[in-house]
Amino acid sequence: MQGQTKMEETLDPQDWQAMAELGRRMVDDMVQYLKTVGDGPVWRHAPEEVKAHFSQSLPQDPQPAEQVYQEFLNYVLPYPVGNVHPRFWGWVIGTGTISGAFAEFLAAVMNTNTGGLDHHAANHVEKQLIQWFREIFAFPAGSSGVLTSGCSAANLIALAVARNSKAEGDLRRQGLQGVKRRMTLYGSEEIHSSLQKAVELLGLGSDSLRTIGVDQDFRIDTAKLEEAISSDRQKGHLPFCVIGAAGTTNTGASDDLHALADISEREGLWFHVDGAFGAWAILAPSGKAQVAGIERADSLALDLHKWMYMPYEIGCILVRDEQKHRSTFSLTPAYLAHGEGGRGLTGGDLPWFSDYHIQLSRGFRALKAWMSLKEHGLRKYGRLIEQNILQARYLGDLVEKNPQLELAAPIMLNVVCFRFVGEGEKRSERDERALDDLNREILTRLQEEGTAVPSGTSVRGRYYLHLAITNHRSRKQDFDLLLREVLRIGGDLQGST
Amino acid sequence: MQGQTKMEETLDPQDWQAMAELGRRMVDDMVQYLKTVGDGPVWRHAPEEVKAHFSQSLPQDPQPAEQVYQEFLNYVLPYPVGNVHPRFWGWVIGTGTISGAFAEFLAAVMNTNTGGLDHHAANHVEKQLIQWFREIFAFPAGSSGVLTSGCSAANLIALAVARNSKAEGDLRRQGLQGVKRRMTLYGSEEIHSSLQKAVELLGLGSDSLRTIGVDQDFRIDTAKLEEAISSDRQKGHLPFCVIGAAGTTNTGASDDLHALADISEREGLWFHVDGAFGAWAILAPSGKAQVAGIERADSLALDLHKWMYMPYEIGCILVRDEQKHRSTFSLTPAYLAHGEGGRGLTGGDLPWFSDYHIQLSRGFRALKAWMSLKEHGLRKYGRLIEQNILQARYLGDLVEKNPQLELAAPIMLNVVCFRFVGEGEKRSERDERALDDLNREILTRLQEEGTAVPSGTSVRGRYYLHLAITNHRSRKQDFDLLLREVLRIGGDLQGST
Repeated sequence: MQGQTKMEETLDPQDWQAMAELGRRMVDDMVQYLKTVGDGPVWRHAPEEVKAHFSQSLPQDPQPAEQVYQEFLNYVLPYPVGNVHPRFWGWVIGTGTISGAFAEFLAAVMNTNTGGLDHHAANHVEKQLIQWFREIFAFPAGSSGVLTSGCSAANLIALAVARNSKAEGDLRRQGLQGVKRRMTLYGSEEIHSSLQKAVELLGLGSDSLRTIGVDQDFRIDTAKLEEAISSDRQKGHLPFCVIGAAGTTNTGASDDLHALADISEREGLWFHVDGAFGAWAILAPSGKAQVAGIERADSLALDLHKWMYMPYEIGCILVRDEQKHRSTFSLTPAYLAHGEGGRGLTGGDLPWFSDYHIQLSRGFRALKAWMSLKEHGLRKYGRLIEQNILQARYLGDLVEKNPQLELAAPIMLNVVCFRFVGEGEKRSERDERALDDLNREILTRLQEEGTAVPSGTSVRGRYYLHLAITNHRSRKQDFDLLLREVLRIGGDLQGST
Repeated sequence: MQGQTKMEETLDPQDWQAMAELGRRMVDDMVQYLKTVGDGPVWRHAPEEVKAHFSQSLPQDPQPAEQVYQEFLNYVLPYPVGNVHPRFWGWVIGTGTISGAFAEFLAAVMNTNTGGLDHHAANHVEKQLIQWFREIFAFPAGSSGVLTSGCSAANLIALAVARNSKAEGDLRRQGLQGVKRRMTLYGSEEIHSSLQKAVELLGLGSDSLRTIGVDQDFRIDTAKLEEAISSDRQKGHLPFCVIGAAGTTNTGASDDLHALADISEREGLWFHVDGAFGAWAILAPSGKAQVAGIERADSLALDLHKWMYMPYEIGCILVRDEQKHRSTFSLTPAYLAHGEGGRGLTGGDLPWFSDYHIQLSRGFRALKAWMSLKEHGLRKYGRLIEQNILQARYLGDLVEKNPQLELAAPIMLNVVCFRFVGEGEKRSERDERALDDLNREILTRLQEEGTAVPSGTSVRGRYYLHLAITNHRSRKQDFDLLLREVLRIGGDLQGST
């Protein structure tokens, strides 16, 4: 017996002190890394020998943990996405924080499965966080919520609840093939692609997602929306859901959420709001008017890893009607029985988080949000979001004042789309195509030189540099630098043609 | 300008050194915690004052990070799920490791979005990991794969690809309401609930999931499966997918995967294997025969946070036909354009991970798996999985030898279901119900006393204690202790009635 016991192995370290020493080194290295991250380029190309390193075959034998960490330092850390840098504004990607990363470490040590069970603290942390979100977005006490990997999952959950609640018959059992009237839903042509992805995944078909035109400020045209609903009803279809955007990816526009809530109420439709980053404008004096009416949503999708600056992954879905949320996802086989009596690990009478989610096993993503909100306080988040909005306006003003530059859209939130037009006069279509290419090249050079990372997008068919400022490290001087470089590169390119 | 710059705020710490000091303290505390976690009870009830702490309202003002950490130490860490403890075997929950937690910290510092972009190292790490999984499961070089939050997401992705590939017409566009013949799929009554959840989410309806009976060893009855397919064809339905289990939650049984692959081939159906934990039996001499044929799956769902002992969340989906996988999920609006030219952050010619996934934004979950596999080497994982299988057999033998105990099923992998029957003779139905209650009470007391955590389940209508041994900290003596306690509690309870 003794002999057999000795044979038993573990993944725990043989030398715990050496492991602690390694962890302390990591902490020191990472603090130093983040402290100085703005001093270097935003990103850099990996040389061929680095790329080749990632084609090594499956490791069969062990290596010291210190050596594996050295590999990380040599081959991974030097080649980041760039979004921790003060001059990264591409797509909509957040910055993260050192204390958020510490919280991820603590959560991983606890290695909590928050899918269910009622005896442990992590689920209380998540419940408290959801309660805080209810307070922020003025959702009622009885509403439900659950953290997600991000807004793709949050939008999917919301549309699933909308679909199942509004379907004629028992959709979970019968499926869409058992539903006669075509179920249709509505959102502007500017809503996020994750919503189309969700619609397709849910089996509704992208044809059922009616994309409605926008006004000059990229907000959904509510008259066209009403026409579309009415037209579908006349055709015998079943309109069931309206999607509102609180902050679009392309221009930062928010739909008139009150108008959409009114229409949804009148028509008996589910009102979903995709508030990925834009919802948080509610915390900022210059942003909150944009998202007025958000509190009237039947479901609200949020990200914390974008404009709340928390490390990936963390999003959230709030649903006004808890019962509808639960009845879409709750499924309890014998081995997951819970809520029986008051004792043991399954003794609580509360539903599990998996009763509201696609996922059964779930990590402890709540901890980083809970600790971050406590450390910084909500007011500071409001000030930082305000700061990003004012930075966007500052950049927008500089662009507008410069005849060589052109804005694609008014600055509504934290998104700026602009392009270099140079010394040109009134332009022909051919000039426009040349400008698209010119700005594509400006963006590529900016990125390649590592000075700043906007992304690119198309607005009303023309190519623009795109910034979504969800970065707590950016300073005004960073935007000054960006414009200087755009003008320099643009001038060089135009001069050389 | 200078004045304005000074006003700008950040979430970075004012005192980086103090923050580093805090991080080092966390490392020391957490190393000490995991080193000694087996000395205490598996879990404990949170007192009322702890529960009350989680009803405090939204924090508006900041608190020192040290104070927030102290809150974590006081209110969160002492009340874990219990799965890091050597005597936790409930449901199927993994253990985690300290170096896995370090990797989560490093990943959160980099705060990588692995949804896309081709310029950064994290995606090379994930691609390498997927390549290693291809090697392990003998999937072809051209197959695709992507990490997921776990098997719920992996199963969902797989069934979405199966559905879209086998549907008549363009399902993404038309939806299921445009599909005439009812799409049906097949799995045993022992498959995991996440598959039913996926079927419902995909709009197929749980009625379309034909649950096939099992043989005495809880493996799908292939004759009944063939009958069901044939019967559906006769009714004019469209059978499209067979689901095989590699290790069921309830008993650890694996279906005859070769037989299912043969039937799927013959019938032209998609063959999906849910290998959540069981797939990894391929690494163990005593387990690999159970999952023979797994390499013939069209799609294979895996978890790394169960039997590979990695911290939550990490799963994976492998799909044999890359094109089918991509054509289910790829969706590229203007602001996500990629693969153009060879320069900048979007310059690569490879698809993005978001082209294979529900999620767009994705964290860097690959790092913990990559670093863990390098640190321990694959052979050690094989030995630990073998160790868990042998522990299950050891426990099974002890149960079989004891007339007061009874196994629900033979030990096929790492799952043990057994119950206390005491001194009873041949039992009536009434006695059986009393035994159900008795074993429920034994489980509750075991859990309440914090000595060990099995879970409970129902096998062939009777209640059993359920262990899934996916714990690298368990020792044989832990199972000896479990049985002593079950016999003691069972004896006490039976004596007192």
